[in-house]
Amino acid sequence: MFKRRDNIKEVEEGKYLEPKFDENGLIPVVATDFKTGDILMHGYMNGEALKKTIETKEAHYWSRSRKKIWHKGQISGFVQTVKEIRIDDDQDSVWLSVDIGNGASCHVGYRSCFYRSIPLGNIKNVQELEMEFKENKKIFDPKKVYKGEPNPTKL
Amino acid sequence: MFKRRDNIKEVEEGKYLEPKFDENGLIPVVATDFKTGDILMHGYMNGEALKKTIETKEAHYWSRSRKKIWHKGQISGFVQTVKEIRIDDDQDSVWLSVDIGNGASCHVGYRSCFYRSIPLGNIKNVQELEMEFKENKKIFDPKKVYKGEPNPTKL
Repeated sequence: MFKRRDNIKEVEEGKYLEPKFDENGLIPVVATDFKTGDILMHGYMNGEALKKTIETKEAHYWSRSRKKIWHKGQISGFVQTVKEIRIDDDQDSVWLSVDIGNGASCHVGYRSCFYRSIPLGNIKNVQELEMEFKENKKIFDPKKVYKGEPNPTKL
Repeated sequence: MFKRRDNIKEVEEGKYLEPKFDENGLIPVVATDFKTGDILMHGYMNGEALKKTIETKEAHYWSRSRKKIWHKGQISGFVQTVKEIRIDDDQDSVWLSVDIGNGASCHVGYRSCFYRSIPLGNIKNVQELEMEFKENKKIFDPKKVYKGEPNPTKL
């Protein structure tokens, strides 16, 4: 769909979008809050999701659990309005800077999916590495919002 | 190495680190600049790299091109000092907030790997999607710094 990658110099220093999709046809995507810089979520896109995101200015991902294009916010209402899209040096990952207003991006109910912090320094017991919660208030109740939907988290 | 994942509720809402590594034993990692919130790079860690990063407070990744643990900055000198590590809801991606001083994180020489912006809106020709450069000055000359090292970018 996109321009073919046939020259490393062009991929790195060229002006054309030549994204690299992995063996499953996906590219990793990180969405940050355009106001705070906080990472909201890490997901994946296929080519169609990337194209839709560029054209509609609303984030579309590939849901690996549901195996389909996922217009973020379709169920919860928490659409991600895209302020900017960037791609990295070797064009194998994407950065979305998004506006979610006062909403949430995490299916567990928190604003950011990254609500737990791993303590730094010597690890006493790697089997009992206790994290610290950095968000203490859920923005919404996932039981109400996702009633009947399967949980995307897999073991 | 880490605590076993055997309960989705614990993975999502628990305090213990139970990271999920993919079929290649890797977990995706995003590093942001702790001052600006800009994404610097997207990489991967295996369990050992994650443990080393926690313990040394310096970012260690898994180099997929070199197939070994990669202490970021070992060659270039641009070490990433870790200010905070977070993990997401289903514990399958990691966020590093790092200090790189006035250094760079991109092997092409720019401060951030994400130096090109994809224009939003209707796409005229997906084969010729022209991006805009958001950084115009390289922090270092990769030809000098990485003399003799293979380029990690793959087609």
